[in-house]
This record gives sequence, structure tokens and C-alpha cells, in this order.
Amino acid sequence: MIKQKNEFEIISDFFSPLARDKGSFGLSDDVAALSLEKDYEFIVSTDMLVSGVHFFSSDKPEDVASKCIRVNISDIISKGGIPKYYFLSIALPKEIDDKWLRSFTKSLGIEQKNFDIFLMGGDTVSTSGPLIVNIVCIGVVKNNHLIRRNGARPGDDIYVTGEIGSAKIGLEICKKNITVNSNLENYFIKKYRLPKPKKQLGPKLINIATSSIDISDGLISDLNHICLASNVKAEINYYLLPITDYVSELRIDENELKNILLNGGDDYEILFTANSENSSKIIDLSKSLKVDITKIGVIVDGEGIVVLNNESEKMDLILDGYKHR
Amino acid sequence: MIKQKNEFEIISDFFSPLARDKGSFGLSDDVAALSLEKDYEFIVSTDMLVSGVHFFSSDKPEDVASKCIRVNISDIISKGGIPKYYFLSIALPKEIDDKWLRSFTKSLGIEQKNFDIFLMGGDTVSTSGPLIVNIVCIGVVKNNHLIRRNGARPGDDIYVTGEIGSAKIGLEICKKNITVNSNLENYFIKKYRLPKPKKQLGPKLINIATSSIDISDGLISDLNHICLASNVKAEINYYLLPITDYVSELRIDENELKNILLNGGDDYEILFTANSENSSKIIDLSKSLKVDITKIGVIVDGEGIVVLNNESEKMDLILDGYKHR
Repeated sequence: MIKQKNEFEIISDFFSPLARDKGSFGLSDDVAALSLEKDYEFIVSTDMLVSGVHFFSSDKPEDVASKCIRVNISDIISKGGIPKYYFLSIALPKEIDDKWLRSFTKSLGIEQKNFDIFLMGGDTVSTSGPLIVNIVCIGVVKNNHLIRRNGARPGDDIYVTGEIGSAKIGLEICKKNITVNSNLENYFIKKYRLPKPKKQLGPKLINIATSSIDISDGLISDLNHICLASNVKAEINYYLLPITDYVSELRIDENELKNILLNGGDDYEILFTANSENSSKIIDLSKSLKVDITKIGVIVDGEGIVVLNNESEKMDLILDGYKHR
Repeated sequence: MIKQKNEFEIISDFFSPLARDKGSFGLSDDVAALSLEKDYEFIVSTDMLVSGVHFFSSDKPEDVASKCIRVNISDIISKGGIPKYYFLSIALPKEIDDKWLRSFTKSLGIEQKNFDIFLMGGDTVSTSGPLIVNIVCIGVVKNNHLIRRNGARPGDDIYVTGEIGSAKIGLEICKKNITVNSNLENYFIKKYRLPKPKKQLGPKLINIATSSIDISDGLISDLNHICLASNVKAEINYYLLPITDYVSELRIDENELKNILLNGGDDYEILFTANSENSSKIIDLSKSLKVDITKIGVIVDGEGIVVLNNESEKMDLILDGYKHR
């Protein structure tokens, strides 16, 4: 019989080595202690991910670890914060073994280096249901410099980083709803599995962006969050949306593609608004940080979102994102 | 067909009303913002509770809410902290309906008032498995005043608040392993379901207690955590352990009772050590705050725990708590 490790052994063998900030006390006390530099505040985000809902139960442990960390710090980064600490609670089904935990925590260690963050605490429990990972990420931002959802003003430009739609295409490939050759498959699936939070850019958007959000639910849905919070309307040009050239190699019809670009989620790109005075600063940032930033529209008076074609005509689209109101 | 609320509706209908601290932005942004008074630090605890493991699936939603909150803030309080904020992630199985959520969140609201805390964020997901609640509690303590596990010194007295064993007896009653009359049943089950963190006492133990922990795993197990961290040995007197008089009315044999008192968990009382110079201060605190505090032994040089009888003879006991090392 293989001896199952108990909670204490799992923590000491796999998680304690990740707790290298002194305030975590090596996970050997009941709480973690966090101090804060003068003139800064903490910002906190939380995401709970369920196997079979937020990732596939067949996903590799290292990919699950990366995704859980990245979707969470994406929130901190997109609001102008610098991620510092995370707390991880995990509900483990019986079939999770030491090998799985070793790969999972090894990947957490790599992500800690990638993003300069430390594990500070958490909990390990067993469950009869699916694997569930809850992460709380804590970052810092200068007092009152957090980029909120509610600062978009008429006249502001609307920007998005990277490319959109690719993660959703990857998800549909995983679900066998889209078939492509294996090179493209890898490209899109990686976009779905491994979002890339723009850690250099986020904090630099302070004093430039008037509002921001990361795209998790889909472009329209998340833009709608900004419009509602800011009490403004967004006009975006469909043909300005940044997409990869590989999209042209997919056999999907135009309507399906529109739906993917506008309503697909999981991009974890930064969607932000900025006064047009700042457009050259944004171009400079894009160049110096090597992050694609694309202007996709403008904020106007009113409410809701319209999607325009190149002739500035309103396109006839089903904007699923609204269902989330 | 009854329309199921989506995540956004659940948050806005049930959780947003609990988010009354301005830094939570009414749960309408992507992160919460926490600022900190000068000379203070945050302390953070996390607990994940699984239905069928940490509470019964038949437990009422209001009891589940209370238990989840209380076991978590118990950690903050037992370390000398003042609880301030909490983040709640919840994985909901299909059978959870609006009525359940209404009772659950109503109870959270009551606990917020009881303990002066606010909901600051969280996540709501669905699961095919059991209900899982993850709470992260954030409290404040003066810089470097956190009461650690590692400060116990030879010569210190060992104290425990309230009574021990009653929660474990309540659990065994719930499991039908112990039968008692209905009055007693209610007394003990309530001790299991509704721990009472000593919110007034905890912060007052700063500069008095040399080490502290809350009893969640059992007296011996948690005392062992202190001994290991402090590199000391504990000698406790079995006949000094504070138990309710009702125990005499239970039909359980002496060995079973010993096991319950020493190894039963879920008490969420504070176990702490203090220099004997502070004994009169501790008696005064006990009186002024109306919290029973009982001296149960002393810290000595060495390692491990011995349990003595009234003749100072070592008792022959199985100390389950050690299994957690």
C-alpha cells in the first residue's frame, strides 16, 4: 500500500519550499505577516478555478499551476499593481498523487520567479469532488493610484494589448469544435492554457490609463464593465481588433469569428482607456516594452457598446457579453 | 423552469450588500484596495472548508457561514491580531438555491457585525462536487507584535481559554457515536458548530503571551506545534484541563474521555504560554473580559509533551496529536 501523505506532510514537502518571504514564516505559523511601504496600498484579487470548468481535468499539473497563478496576477497587473504575494488553497481529490503535486509545485516555483511573487500561506484539504484551486494575489500600488473601471471619459481612446480571440480559438480546438493542423493547434491551445500577463506594462499605465480591466469574460463583456462603471458608451471598430494572421488559416465562417473575437474570453490582455493626449506615450511604451498595443475605438457620451465597420456603420451583431449584466 | 442566477447576479444580489468598506468598491471592480495605518502590519489566515469534511452536508447555511468565518478569524485573534477584512470564494453545487444563499449571506452579515469585519472580495464558481468555501481573513497587528508559535521559554506557564473537548463531544454526538439527552446534545453540538473566538482577549495577550495558537487540531497536536517551533517541552496536568461539568453526565469511559480532551479538535480556544510574572495580569484579564483562562501546565527544557496526574506522575496515554508531525 502506498502511504498517502497527510496535510502537514504535503505542506512541508511541497509548499513550504515555495514560501521564501520572511513574512510567511516558512508556512510554519498560523498566519502570514505583510508590511507595506509608506505611501503604498495593497490590492487584492481572488480567483477560484475548478477542474472541468476553468481548465480540463486532463491538463498537465504544470499547466494548471501556471494558469491559476497567471489569471490571478493578471487582475493585479491590469490595474497598475505590482504583484507581491499569493495564498493558495487547494482541494485535492484522491487521485492526485505525489508526482502530480511535485509537477504542480515545481511550476508554481517557476511562476514565482517569472513574476517576482512568493507563496505566503494557504490550505490543503481533500475533496470527493473535482480539484479546486483558490488563489488570492496581493500586490502593491501607490496610494490612490489603482486604475479603476470607472475613470473612462468621453473622448478617451480605447486600447487593447496583444491579440484577442486566440485563447477562445484554443479552447474550441481543445473541445474539438475547431480542427486545424498541428502547428496552429499548438499556437492557439498555448494561448488558451498559458495567458501572458503584461507585468512590465501594467504599472506603467498609471497616470496614463483612465480605466482598465483584463479581458477574462470577453472583449464586449469586459468593455461593458468599464462602460457601466464609468457611465459612458464605447464605439469600437471591428476591423481594428488585433488578431493573429493564423486566423486566416482557420476554417470558420465570418459570423463565428465575429462571435469569437467579440465574446470569447480567456485572453487576459489589458483593455484600457486613455486621453488622446497620451497616445504618443502609449506608442513609446509599446515600443520600449515590446508589447503590442492597439487602439480599437473611442469612448463617447451615452451607454452601451456599438461595433462599427470600416465605413463607420453599426454592425449587426449578437453581443453575448451583455448577458453578464 | 426556475431561472438559475448567474455568477454576476449572485454577487450583486447576495454578496455586494456585505461589501461596505470603501476599499471593496462594492465588489464592482477587479480588485480590493487595503491601506494600513502607520506602525501596523497585516496578518493573513486562510481556511478552505469542504462540505462532508469540515461540516455536515445537512448543516444549515447559516451555521456553515458562521463556522467558516469563525474558524478563520480565530487564527487572527489567537495571534494577537484584530480581524478587519475577509475574502470569500465559494464553489456551489447545483442544489444550492437562492434560499440557501440568502440564509448563508444573512448569517455572514451577522458575523460581520459580531466581529467588525467586512467582505472585500471573492469568487463564485459552480462545481460538480461538494460545496467548498475558502475564506481569507486579514487582520492588523502592531509591527512585530504578532504572537508567534516560537516564543515559549522554559519556566513559562501554559494556559488555555474556555473549555476543551466539548466541540469534539458535539462532533461525536452528530456522528451518533455518543448518545445523550437532548439538552446536553444541544449544548455540545453548539460547541462544535459555533466556535467562539475570543476577540477581546486575543489582542490583549500581546506583550503577555510568549507564544500562542488556536486549538483546531486538538490540544496535544497544537501544543506540539508550539513545542516544536519553540524548541521546548511541555508538561501539562490532565486534571487541570478545563471541561464542562456536563461531561460527568455522559456515558463514556475514562480512556475515551482522555482521548477526547487531549486529541479532540475544533475547540478554537486560545492556547498560550506566558512568563509566570504575568500570572496576575492574566487573572485580571480573565475577570475583566469574562473569559475563563486556565493554567494547565508549564514549559520546561527538552522536547515533546508529557501529561501528568495529580501526583505529578506521567500518565500512560496515546497522544494522537503527534501523528501530525
